[in-house]
Amino acid sequence: MNIEKYVTDVCKKAQKASRILANQRPDDKNKALNAMADLILAERETIKAENKKDLDAGQKKGLSKAMLDRLELTDARIDGMAKGLREVAELTDPVGEILDNTIRPSGIEITKIRVPIGVIAIIYESRPNVTADAAGLCLKSGNAVILRGGSEAFHSNLVIANILRSALKNTGLPEDAVQFVETTDRKAVDHLLHAEEYIDVIIPRGGKGLIKKVATESRIPVLKHYDGICHTYIAEGADIDKAIAIAFNAKVQRPGVCNAMETLLINKEIAKDILPPMFLKLRKAGVEIRGCDEIIKLDPSAIPATEEDWNTEYLDLILSVKVVDNLEEAINFINEHSSHHSDAIVTEDHYEAAHFLQSIDSATVYVNASTRFTDGGEFGMGAEMGISTDKLHARGPVGLVELTSYKYMIRGNGTIRK
Amino acid sequence: MNIEKYVTDVCKKAQKASRILANQRPDDKNKALNAMADLILAERETIKAENKKDLDAGQKKGLSKAMLDRLELTDARIDGMAKGLREVAELTDPVGEILDNTIRPSGIEITKIRVPIGVIAIIYESRPNVTADAAGLCLKSGNAVILRGGSEAFHSNLVIANILRSALKNTGLPEDAVQFVETTDRKAVDHLLHAEEYIDVIIPRGGKGLIKKVATESRIPVLKHYDGICHTYIAEGADIDKAIAIAFNAKVQRPGVCNAMETLLINKEIAKDILPPMFLKLRKAGVEIRGCDEIIKLDPSAIPATEEDWNTEYLDLILSVKVVDNLEEAINFINEHSSHHSDAIVTEDHYEAAHFLQSIDSATVYVNASTRFTDGGEFGMGAEMGISTDKLHARGPVGLVELTSYKYMIRGNGTIRK
Repeated sequence: MNIEKYVTDVCKKAQKASRILANQRPDDKNKALNAMADLILAERETIKAENKKDLDAGQKKGLSKAMLDRLELTDARIDGMAKGLREVAELTDPVGEILDNTIRPSGIEITKIRVPIGVIAIIYESRPNVTADAAGLCLKSGNAVILRGGSEAFHSNLVIANILRSALKNTGLPEDAVQFVETTDRKAVDHLLHAEEYIDVIIPRGGKGLIKKVATESRIPVLKHYDGICHTYIAEGADIDKAIAIAFNAKVQRPGVCNAMETLLINKEIAKDILPPMFLKLRKAGVEIRGCDEIIKLDPSAIPATEEDWNTEYLDLILSVKVVDNLEEAINFINEHSSHHSDAIVTEDHYEAAHFLQSIDSATVYVNASTRFTDGGEFGMGAEMGISTDKLHARGPVGLVELTSYKYMIRGNGTIRK
Repeated sequence: MNIEKYVTDVCKKAQKASRILANQRPDDKNKALNAMADLILAERETIKAENKKDLDAGQKKGLSKAMLDRLELTDARIDGMAKGLREVAELTDPVGEILDNTIRPSGIEITKIRVPIGVIAIIYESRPNVTADAAGLCLKSGNAVILRGGSEAFHSNLVIANILRSALKNTGLPEDAVQFVETTDRKAVDHLLHAEEYIDVIIPRGGKGLIKKVATESRIPVLKHYDGICHTYIAEGADIDKAIAIAFNAKVQRPGVCNAMETLLINKEIAKDILPPMFLKLRKAGVEIRGCDEIIKLDPSAIPATEEDWNTEYLDLILSVKVVDNLEEAINFINEHSSHHSDAIVTEDHYEAAHFLQSIDSATVYVNASTRFTDGGEFGMGAEMGISTDKLHARGPVGLVELTSYKYMIRGNGTIRK
């Protein structure tokens, strides 16, 4: 197999399909999404058989129990894929929305209209259900998608992609609008990263190493987030009960996700009152507390935090805690150490709240709420493709709208420039 | 001079200034813009003296007359810079616009609000007036800017930047919001391209070589356009007078710019009627016609076009012309050969017009108008930073709005995720 030729061929077919897909009616795309869901359920046993090949190979390779669990397509997960596709069908179609319309003094009428981006490449290491989730979002937003999954889920991803393609074909849409890279050869990724003639955006989903590789090597625009180092600042004007509830929720409710809190800042005026009940509650839930010198003074059983702690995404039941003198110190600390994902203040003081919202340079900034709400579903976007910590194009949750671009349609009547 | 340390220092100061600038009131930014204009006029003689150093050095280096002309800051051009800054002050401030506001079932209120991007680096080879134009747009949109100009305009750029900085200081805004890289060492560019910790977007303005270097080497998002290979398709349903007027305007009115037409497609049914009067008019204006085989048959005095002609941005009085069988062939040809900047159809047929607008994958698509209208001023955006042929973030003219991002401000009342 000539990998370069193969990848170029996949890209060309995707670009061609994207131009057909861009002009489809919402109903036709929704019909295809529902047909995909139907076919996934109808082919449940085929999917499980292919998934078993990956599971067996994984066991032989000595994958951890957690990794094997992530890999497994149970009945519930297969149902989940079908349900996800039907939910995407229910969402508002973003394509064709008129964003602006003006008639200029020259006589031209300019209509700014939302259009699909074109061809989206997704490189993922995650669970095989991403194949269906990502393809569904791309189809709904009118984009062709090139999927490159991890080698350990190869058979599972491939069978799902082929089912999705069949559903496209059965409903009269171009099957090349969904393509899976049918090789585990790593060179395929390198060729994708350099296919700027065909691919409009790359979305890497996986570990930091993958994301860094994609961002470094590719000239194609990338939608990504590296880290979720999220902060909560308990201000002098905080309500102590709310503060404890929010901090506890942000750290404990699901510590392994990017919108969980990693660092807690506490105003020195409130520290003495809030620390004992808060630390008691956190420790009961198994949270390890790492503190600055001031914290250690107030609570000698805390572990001293090192400089590294302030820049670490634990994704675990560990929390670094720091006492700060005032709002400005909190803002400066967060702007320096945050990954610009989600940061919160707890305060009853209107000025503090407004100044924090204005000054924190992050995708989502909270007052009196848990950072755990940064999520496409919680935002009302439906499913999401990830959360962007970049500032260009998409910031925060990447839903259907963020998978679109726009163009200007201009109408004249023999109009020329003077 | 330790170039890396110097560039990092410039970047850090820009980031710090950007956070102050992000919270300025529109009036205060406008006051600074007008102060910049005043000071440029007041320092006219200083600017001319510094400009003379560049002109003398350029003459010694043997720069062409055209290049020396581009370099010269005449009184009219100095007036133009001041006028441009005052015009930017008059534009609507994009920062702080509420893009969306919802209250979710969870109880959180989500406000999507327009914010500056942060730090913008502009690497330019162009005329020294870009220093003032670019800084003005960045200031108005609340962004700090790092300017890196061409070495041949070093003294001119530096004196303008210092004048702008003085005006910022005089009006109480951070002078580091405008910084000029005060070295012609090429290593400075390399360090800028890798300062992803501080710079949020890079805008290269200059030749294709510069743009390619920036896009290839930097991991920072880039706003750019490579080429302006613009097409006009004269459809079977075209009005011949309008078609000739539009084609003539698109090619001849200003051939050296990116929105000028480079390739003309003509439907075979209309070719025989339209070619003689159109070619006559174009040739009278000095346009060289390069044609496909069909064109040569119809007009043997045309020069045979090579494959390369269909992919060339002439920026000159040269036009490649091709006969096509139908609308679909025109659409496919344009989608393949266009640089996705500006493409037009001339037709009176509603179906043809709608299908063309829908199917052409370019930033601006025209019906019955000259491609020369793709321009921030003509679009009503005021000044522009360039025209993007990318599909992410900004497509088409890059004005103030395109120099912004957004963030989500979220308000709860002790709200936690269930």
